[in-house]
Amino acid sequence: MQLLSYQPLAEQLFDEIRALSFDGVGVTRASYGEGESATAEYLRAFALAQGLRVQVDRAANVVFSLPGDDPEAPAIWIGSHIDSVPQGGNFDGLAGVIAGLLALVARQRWHPTSGGGSALPLKVIAFRGEESAWFGKAYMGSSALLGKLAPADLQLKQRSTGQSLGECMAAVGADVQAISLQEKLVDTRAIKAYLELHIEQGPVMDARDLPLAVVSGIRGNVRHNRIVCLGDAQHSGVVPRWLRHDAMFAVSDLIMRLDTHWRELLERGTDLVVTAGIVQTDEAEHSISRIPGRVSFSLEARSKSSDTLEAFYQLVQAEMASISRERGVRFQNDRRLTSDPATMDPGLCDMLLQACRDNGIRHDTLPSGAGHDASLFANAGVPSAMLFVRNQNGSHNPHEAMDIDDFMLGVQVLSDAVQRVQDLGHALAF
Amino acid sequence: MQLLSYQPLAEQLFDEIRALSFDGVGVTRASYGEGESATAEYLRAFALAQGLRVQVDRAANVVFSLPGDDPEAPAIWIGSHIDSVPQGGNFDGLAGVIAGLLALVARQRWHPTSGGGSALPLKVIAFRGEESAWFGKAYMGSSALLGKLAPADLQLKQRSTGQSLGECMAAVGADVQAISLQEKLVDTRAIKAYLELHIEQGPVMDARDLPLAVVSGIRGNVRHNRIVCLGDAQHSGVVPRWLRHDAMFAVSDLIMRLDTHWRELLERGTDLVVTAGIVQTDEAEHSISRIPGRVSFSLEARSKSSDTLEAFYQLVQAEMASISRERGVRFQNDRRLTSDPATMDPGLCDMLLQACRDNGIRHDTLPSGAGHDASLFANAGVPSAMLFVRNQNGSHNPHEAMDIDDFMLGVQVLSDAVQRVQDLGHALAF
Repeated sequence: MQLLSYQPLAEQLFDEIRALSFDGVGVTRASYGEGESATAEYLRAFALAQGLRVQVDRAANVVFSLPGDDPEAPAIWIGSHIDSVPQGGNFDGLAGVIAGLLALVARQRWHPTSGGGSALPLKVIAFRGEESAWFGKAYMGSSALLGKLAPADLQLKQRSTGQSLGECMAAVGADVQAISLQEKLVDTRAIKAYLELHIEQGPVMDARDLPLAVVSGIRGNVRHNRIVCLGDAQHSGVVPRWLRHDAMFAVSDLIMRLDTHWRELLERGTDLVVTAGIVQTDEAEHSISRIPGRVSFSLEARSKSSDTLEAFYQLVQAEMASISRERGVRFQNDRRLTSDPATMDPGLCDMLLQACRDNGIRHDTLPSGAGHDASLFANAGVPSAMLFVRNQNGSHNPHEAMDIDDFMLGVQVLSDAVQRVQDLGHALAF
Repeated sequence: MQLLSYQPLAEQLFDEIRALSFDGVGVTRASYGEGESATAEYLRAFALAQGLRVQVDRAANVVFSLPGDDPEAPAIWIGSHIDSVPQGGNFDGLAGVIAGLLALVARQRWHPTSGGGSALPLKVIAFRGEESAWFGKAYMGSSALLGKLAPADLQLKQRSTGQSLGECMAAVGADVQAISLQEKLVDTRAIKAYLELHIEQGPVMDARDLPLAVVSGIRGNVRHNRIVCLGDAQHSGVVPRWLRHDAMFAVSDLIMRLDTHWRELLERGTDLVVTAGIVQTDEAEHSISRIPGRVSFSLEARSKSSDTLEAFYQLVQAEMASISRERGVRFQNDRRLTSDPATMDPGLCDMLLQACRDNGIRHDTLPSGAGHDASLFANAGVPSAMLFVRNQNGSHNPHEAMDIDDFMLGVQVLSDAVQRVQDLGHALAF
């Protein structure tokens, strides 16, 4: 099945969704908020017009399938998310959903009368709530579906409105009671394979001239959304160094100690990145001539190795204790959040690699530095694989620059891999 | 002349002035406003009842002297201020005025018939308008007297009433026309020495068990209200360390490098404090999973030495350049602001130190981190010195806690130093 001719349709979908979620700088599709819901509604109308079946699952994610397929039968899933960070780019998440939809549309047009009927049907799922930017928690839509959203998560507050995650999920129709009981809202045994196409969010493929790459594994992370460092706010001119308890110097000290550990760990070949994405002195009391008495900050470490994450987390705690003693400050940690690293299924990866070779596309295997909904499925025992599409200028910013030609190669490879799974499904282990 | 017996009178003055300016939480004596005028009126009545001469200068400050002294003769001045911050403490400013008045009263009672007659008379000045809390400008009363209040300053608005400084000064009798012309309203050559007693506004004397300290100099400062560090905002998981341009790691690096320089400079005996009072990742784009691309921060260094300020400023610039190269970031500085340090007169400081020794009082020399009216006189060429009295709980808050015993030691030392200047006046350089 050749999908390259669907390029104009792909461009139209990207352009129209960009227009409805443009904020003046980039796109803003808040998790369980306005831009995300507008995108869901747009895709629903598009899919119905194409003759597809559209359902909403109990976690308010949107599920697309062929009308001739049994919606309850074991299936191959293609998934990705439709939310974005504030002032983000148009492709992070959305590309995977559109890729899946194009694969479905092509199948619907290929068999317009039967409209499916495969022994291993294809389903496409558009997740809500993947980005942690809004509630400080990622993969909310897939977590909810898999019974992995804790009651405490539902209490998290939206960064600008202050509404709780539970309220926002309920407002778009999610079954928050079942979710809070951590009920599994899907039978994972009926998901025979989970595939996800996503833009690469780093600079490697562009640097190495690779339009596509098959993901070898996904980094996990450990984080605190909000750590508060408490010192002693005093007039900046009158307290000598030895009597100061400067919360900002303490936080800077922590960041620089972690920077040193990070460099040393890299030299030993460890996989690790460290970020303090949000740092703020306290607006209620800070001033140019006042020693900061209160600084809040986020802290995140990512690695392919659970052991590395745990070891680094212990280093963070040890350095906080040391700085507290040396500088007379206190660190108050909020709840520790952990996302496990994920292993991709070798059989599915091979099918993606074979499809790349069959289409004569330069490719390689690469680890994923960012987490994805695919991690959740992999860690829930679903054979999972991911395909990266080259993208300039990173992600989570308005300058994402995926080439539509690269995207169409990805759609072709994804669709070919689905076909191969469908053809060989009964002969495979899953 | 023994002044310790004046303790009950001192307590009465503090208590009665506190009562007339109590606001329910602390004391409020607004610059050129109600509490300040009530205090001026109370002191005027008290001084007249004690047989002192009371005059109001052209900037509306209140001047006390002995009736037998020539009011036009060159004199020794004791000064401080009678205003306070909103909900402030009773001692910041007022202690210095009461100390001067007690020294005058003691002289008046010692020579009740002659009422003065010294070749180098003592004058006590109660400044209005020292606190910047009301009009965003400090030292208004002494600046006006010295021709240093700019016409633009007279347009400043009172924080709650919105009235201009010029209107408020005129309402209490100041010659606003002369002030706006920056006319010198006093002949500084006729001020042979300026002395000021003030509570310490920091914690050092309490920590070191020093009832009194002689101020070695008043710190100036150099600052930037807002420096912006620009890096590259990217997804936190996907950019390896060597490709990152993390603005928060860069700012932390700068703060820690300055911390190291600061510690080394202190070890060489340099006077310095360094503060980054406001630090903020960019709210429009920051998130937990994003490498900060933009961090804004304030930076302030204070020192008694202009050379130290300049040298430290050059260090800051050099470290910014070094970090820019190493981390691939840029620093954008706003306008550099500078306040000159004030040097205290060594001869006057010696007289205060000698008086401490003569009275067997634990003491040391300390820099003043905050500015005072004394800075204005020192920088106008008047030999100036300051005496600090120990005070718990900082200043500019209702919890100031000066011990009356410490205060009386200060009054004794101040009076003894005045006596010494009067005795040796003709032999001294000034």
